[in-house]
Amino acid sequence: MEKRTIKLGILGLGTVGSGVAKILLETSKNINQKMKKKLELAKILDKDLTREREIEVPAEIMTDKPEEVLENPEIDIVIELIGGVNPAKDFMIRALKAKKHVVTANKEVMAKYGSDLLDLAEENGVDLYFEASVGGGIPIIRSLKESLTANKVEEIMGIVNGTTNYILTKMTQEGADFADALAEAQDLGYAEADPTADVDGYDAAYKLSILSAIAFGSRIDINDIYLEGISKVTQKDITYAKELNYVIKLLAIGKEVDGKIEARVHPTMIPNNHPLAAVNDSFNAVFVKGHAVGELMYYGRGAGSMPTGSAVVADVIDIARNIINDANGRIACSCYEEKELKSINEVVSKYYLRLQVIDRPGVLAAVSGILGNNGVSIESMIQKSKTENGVPLILVAHQVNEGNIQTALNEIDNLAEVKEISSLIRVEGEECY
Amino acid sequence: MEKRTIKLGILGLGTVGSGVAKILLETSKNINQKMKKKLELAKILDKDLTREREIEVPAEIMTDKPEEVLENPEIDIVIELIGGVNPAKDFMIRALKAKKHVVTANKEVMAKYGSDLLDLAEENGVDLYFEASVGGGIPIIRSLKESLTANKVEEIMGIVNGTTNYILTKMTQEGADFADALAEAQDLGYAEADPTADVDGYDAAYKLSILSAIAFGSRIDINDIYLEGISKVTQKDITYAKELNYVIKLLAIGKEVDGKIEARVHPTMIPNNHPLAAVNDSFNAVFVKGHAVGELMYYGRGAGSMPTGSAVVADVIDIARNIINDANGRIACSCYEEKELKSINEVVSKYYLRLQVIDRPGVLAAVSGILGNNGVSIESMIQKSKTENGVPLILVAHQVNEGNIQTALNEIDNLAEVKEISSLIRVEGEECY
Repeated sequence: MEKRTIKLGILGLGTVGSGVAKILLETSKNINQKMKKKLELAKILDKDLTREREIEVPAEIMTDKPEEVLENPEIDIVIELIGGVNPAKDFMIRALKAKKHVVTANKEVMAKYGSDLLDLAEENGVDLYFEASVGGGIPIIRSLKESLTANKVEEIMGIVNGTTNYILTKMTQEGADFADALAEAQDLGYAEADPTADVDGYDAAYKLSILSAIAFGSRIDINDIYLEGISKVTQKDITYAKELNYVIKLLAIGKEVDGKIEARVHPTMIPNNHPLAAVNDSFNAVFVKGHAVGELMYYGRGAGSMPTGSAVVADVIDIARNIINDANGRIACSCYEEKELKSINEVVSKYYLRLQVIDRPGVLAAVSGILGNNGVSIESMIQKSKTENGVPLILVAHQVNEGNIQTALNEIDNLAEVKEISSLIRVEGEECY
Repeated sequence: MEKRTIKLGILGLGTVGSGVAKILLETSKNINQKMKKKLELAKILDKDLTREREIEVPAEIMTDKPEEVLENPEIDIVIELIGGVNPAKDFMIRALKAKKHVVTANKEVMAKYGSDLLDLAEENGVDLYFEASVGGGIPIIRSLKESLTANKVEEIMGIVNGTTNYILTKMTQEGADFADALAEAQDLGYAEADPTADVDGYDAAYKLSILSAIAFGSRIDINDIYLEGISKVTQKDITYAKELNYVIKLLAIGKEVDGKIEARVHPTMIPNNHPLAAVNDSFNAVFVKGHAVGELMYYGRGAGSMPTGSAVVADVIDIARNIINDANGRIACSCYEEKELKSINEVVSKYYLRLQVIDRPGVLAAVSGILGNNGVSIESMIQKSKTENGVPLILVAHQVNEGNIQTALNEIDNLAEVKEISSLIRVEGEECY
C-alpha cells in the first residue's frame, strides 16, 4: 500500500531546529494544502531531552538516540540541524546510505565535504538539499540551480555574514570603533564570544565556496579562497569612503573571467548607489550578474530561527514533491568542470589606498611615479591637512592587477617620505552603473 | 525508442523571442551540460519572415504557419512570446490541448485567463509556466511556488513597472516634471507612444493579479484591483516627500490581513531606508513579507530581451527536467481558496495629505478637528510659508482606515478656509523598521 504521509526526522533541536519544528507543527495545514501527501514530523533527536525550549513538542516524538531517526524505516527525510562537522557529517552519511533524503543548514559540512556527500546522495538515489546553508531565508541556492540556468554567471557578490554587516553598519552610521561595535554585536547575540569565524571571514568563505560551486560549476577548496576579515577596518577608512561616495562591506566575491575563477572574501568599497550599499544591520544579500539576466539581487534575513527554518522547510517540501512524483535527483547533475582558480595577484580590481606621508615637496611625485611605472593609474585623490603624524594621502586607483599594486606598494613603502601604508581596500561594483 | 532531445517551438520572434532564441542558440552547450537530454530549438513562428532581425536564425526553422508549431508532433514545449490576448491565448489553448507544455511571458493572458489555462494544462497533464510574466528576469514566481512554501505570505509590494519607475526616478533625482520625464522615457524606448498601460497602472495590476494568486492562494479579478496611476504625482509632492524622508514609488501592493486580501496599485510613499526606496531607473523589485522568512526582496531587470529571455529559458529547462523525470505537474496544486477582497475603504494605511488653505487663524484647528473626529491622528505636519494661492499644509496621518480619511476629506473640502485638497498619497513600509 502506498504511504499516505511523508515522515520527517529532525537532528538537533537548537535555534534552527526549533524554527523548523515550529513551522512544521504550527502551519501544517497551510503546508499540506500545497501537497498531494501530508508531511509528518515523526522524530526529533536532541542530546538533551530536559532543557527548556521555546516551543512545545509532543514528548513521544523526542529521542536522544540517533538510530531512532537514522535507522527508522518510517522516516523519509532527515533534517540535519546540529551544525559543525561532528557528528553532523557522520549522521548525514548514515542517513544517505540508508536511502533517506537529507536537508541540511550546515555550511561547514557542505563547504568542506559537500562534493562527496552529493555524490553519495546520487549513488543512493536520494536528494541532498542545503538552501539554508547560505543566506538564511534567502532562496539563493534554488535560484542558481533552477532560475538562472539559462545564464553564464559572471559574478557573485554577497553580504553573507550578518555579524560583520551589523558591525560595519554601526561603524558607518554611528561612527563606532570596531571594538565597540563588536562588543555591541556580542551583547545582542549577533556575535559569538569567540567571534573569529565571523570577523575573520571564515563563515563567509564557507558560503562563497558553496555558492561558487553552483554558480560556476567548479568546486573550490575553501583553503584556496583569499581571506581578509574586518578587524583592520578603521573609522578613518569609513570616513574617507563616505567622502568618495563609497561604503565598506565585507563581501564574498566570486567571478568567472575568461574561464578562470576568482574567489575572495575581504572588506570592499562599493558605490553608495550600488544595491548592496543599502543592505544594513544583520541583513544579508547576494548580488548576481548573469550574461542574460544582467544584475540581480536577493535581500533578506541571513540567520535566525524562523527565516532559516523557512529555507529548510522549503527544501523539505521540494524533496517531498520529488518523492510524490518519483522524481528524486531531478536537478542533480554531474556538470562540474575543473576551472583554474586565480591567485589574488591575478585579480583585477580597483583599489583604495591610504598612506601616511611626510609633508615635503616631491612626495606626491614620487608616489605617483611608482604607481605609474607599475601600470597603476589614479582615478581620484584626497590630500588631507597635516596631522601630528604627517599627511594622510588617499588614492583610488583604476582597475589593475593586484600584483601590480602590491609591487608598487613595496616600492612606495621604501620611500623615505612614506611613514606608513595604512590601508589597501579593494573597490568593486561600479561597472554596473 | 526514447527521444534523445526535447524539442522547442517559439511563437513570436520580437524582442523577447529574439532573446530566447539567442540564449538557446548561443549558449546551448552551457545549458545542455545541465540536462540529461538536449534541448533543440525546432521551429519559430513569426508572421513576418522577411524583417531584419538582431539575431541570425537558421532559415529552415522559421515558419509563418502556426500549425507547424502547434500541430507539430515533434515539439514538446511551446514558448508563447507574441504578447497581447489575441491570438496568443488561442495558440496557448491549442498547444495545451495538443498536450504540449507551454511557457509564456504573457502577463495579460495570465492575469485575465491564467486560472482557466492552468486548469486546462492540468487536465492535459502538461505544465504551463509563466515566470517571465512578472518582473522580467527576476525569479519571483518560482520563489513563491518553491522557496516560500513554508510561509504564510503576509505582504507583497512590488515595483513591477520599469517605465513608471524610470519616470519617478527622473522626477526625484533631477526635479523633472511628469510630462518631461515621460517624454524622455518615450525617447529612450522605455515608454510606448500610448503610455496608458504603464502610466495608469494597468501593467502593474496584471502583474499584481498574477503574484497575488500564487502568494495568497486566492484568485483576484483584475477589475477588482484598486488602481491609481502616476500622472497626478507632482514635483511638489516629491519635494515634500524628501523633507519627510520618503520617496514616491508606484507600488503594486497585495496583503492578507485576517484572511482578507488587499490588492491595489498606486503611488506610494516609502521611507528612504526601505529596501524598495533604492530601486531606481527601470529596475524592478518585489518585496515579500512571510510569517517565517520575514522581509525578503528580489531586485533586477524587469524587462528587456535577454533578462526576460533568461526567465523564459529557465522555465523551459524546469519543464524539460520534469519531462526527463516524468514529473510534469510536479508543483501544480488545486490549492486555491476564495478569500474576500477588501474594498479600498477597508484598507488600513498611513496617509500623506497636502492641502492648500487660506492663511487665517483657526484653519489648522478646523482641519485637525475634523481629522480627530474621524479617528485620524496626525504623525507629522509641515506648514509652509504663504504663496499667491494660500498656504500649503502637509500632514502625515497615522495608520487608519481609508474610509475614515475619505470621510474626513469630504468634510475638510467643505471648509471655507480650504481652497484645495491637492494630494492624498498612501504611505507604506514603515512597519519593517
